[in-house]
Amino acid sequence: MLRALQGSGADVVTIGRQAVDGVRAEHCRADLLRDDPEEIFGRVRATHLLHLAWYAEPGLYWRAPVNLDWVAASLRLFRAFAASGGTRAVLAGSCAEYDWVEGPLNETRSAIRPATLYGAAKAHLTDLLQRAAPDMGLSFASGRIFFPFGPDERSERLLGTLIKAGVEGTTAMLSAGTQRRDFIHVDDLASGLLALLHSDVEGPVNIGSGVALPVRRFVEIAIEGAPWPISVEFGARPLAPGEPVEVVADMSRLRDEVGFSPSATVEDRIRDAMRVACLAAGKAVA
Amino acid sequence: MLRALQGSGADVVTIGRQAVDGVRAEHCRADLLRDDPEEIFGRVRATHLLHLAWYAEPGLYWRAPVNLDWVAASLRLFRAFAASGGTRAVLAGSCAEYDWVEGPLNETRSAIRPATLYGAAKAHLTDLLQRAAPDMGLSFASGRIFFPFGPDERSERLLGTLIKAGVEGTTAMLSAGTQRRDFIHVDDLASGLLALLHSDVEGPVNIGSGVALPVRRFVEIAIEGAPWPISVEFGARPLAPGEPVEVVADMSRLRDEVGFSPSATVEDRIRDAMRVACLAAGKAVA
Repeated sequence: MLRALQGSGADVVTIGRQAVDGVRAEHCRADLLRDDPEEIFGRVRATHLLHLAWYAEPGLYWRAPVNLDWVAASLRLFRAFAASGGTRAVLAGSCAEYDWVEGPLNETRSAIRPATLYGAAKAHLTDLLQRAAPDMGLSFASGRIFFPFGPDERSERLLGTLIKAGVEGTTAMLSAGTQRRDFIHVDDLASGLLALLHSDVEGPVNIGSGVALPVRRFVEIAIEGAPWPISVEFGARPLAPGEPVEVVADMSRLRDEVGFSPSATVEDRIRDAMRVACLAAGKAVA
Repeated sequence: MLRALQGSGADVVTIGRQAVDGVRAEHCRADLLRDDPEEIFGRVRATHLLHLAWYAEPGLYWRAPVNLDWVAASLRLFRAFAASGGTRAVLAGSCAEYDWVEGPLNETRSAIRPATLYGAAKAHLTDLLQRAAPDMGLSFASGRIFFPFGPDERSERLLGTLIKAGVEGTTAMLSAGTQRRDFIHVDDLASGLLALLHSDVEGPVNIGSGVALPVRRFVEIAIEGAPWPISVEFGARPLAPGEPVEVVADMSRLRDEVGFSPSATVEDRIRDAMRVACLAAGKAVA
């Protein structure tokens, strides 16, 4: 995201507990769960706010009560940002806000019926900010993010699991992989969020690829692109209870209203990510 | 509410910017929008929490952005209460959380589709707390309050308008009054909240009378019970845009699960409130 922002020529300030390595950007050190956001925006004067921070520990974030703290901290953050003169704000939302039924999920027509506390937290925060934004003098949008993947991801995630199995020479134990997901490369996600931030489109906007790719197909493409053999066993693990058959975005709003589309197919992007991840892993192993 | 709590023998501590006049209860002075709730519950150790505080300026509270601050402050309050060892918490919710369609509104079956920011704030706060409560070690309920009235109400409200017209000898300018509302006397509301607090019923529970009383009928009963003539003009004001035809509670959950019903009919309770209000107004005028 920072690479995309800096590539756009924006004057960027990061806010968080620690600065991001390898990025030249002004950093405002703050703990969003503890520090006073009015004090933060006393130090940082900004026209645009992109709020990505949240609790995201794999496996735990779906139901952890700390989601409530993030809703509270986020409400206070947007209120202080608007009070300090900020005019445009974008929240990182989630496809977990939707009722996960088959068929493309649409921002206007599809039901918001989150199965999890995390999904409810993002959905309710979005609804409150969308309703209050005009009276706060704020233009507000939320990017409903589908299933991101990228070369740097943790080994609990799908691509990370495959890289780890390849490097360690073990077998990745997977589900049957028949479930279909809308995967989006992190670079396309960043470009989509950037386009949304610089547009005047308000309310929720899906950010995905629009392709319902079976998880098994994702794995096969990734393996084919690896320089080493990667051993996987499909069906070694059951699907988690309540896993939906399909989660896929209707991408017309991002494409037609914001004017953004990913620059390559998701299949090519999986190969890209795998190539970069394997290069990095090769270096790490050597 | 304080009279009801003290009548029940509970050991009561009030938390707020100022103590309530004429009530003997320990008071913890705090501004819930500014002060750290962990610090509050370091001072106040309580097993039960009844959270009534909110922004409620007549006419303004439906869409004021300060509703967002109350959501944030409330989330932090419940989190700190649970962390301090509290076990049972009740929120003052609102019938404004529902989609206001005709027919009794039911906690489980009726749609949550608030028309206002205030309604959305209460609905989303309730949903987040209900979802997270088990993992917070908390038993949580929300009292969905319908249309309260009482002898002490402000002159912008319905009974207050009638009292004011009677005292000042003016004519109260009213709508046609065909819309039906579920009115509940503040003493019954307090008793209902108290019963809910001391029960183990979880989730939203309607608190109303269960009677869809036309506003015109409310006014007629109140006028009949007044010791002075009160002049009113029905139809002098239009209904506000979007005013629903009927808002009435299905009272089965409070009655059957909590075991509480108001002790008198709403008609008798209107006469009670009018008698008390006129006595007080007579004293004030004399």
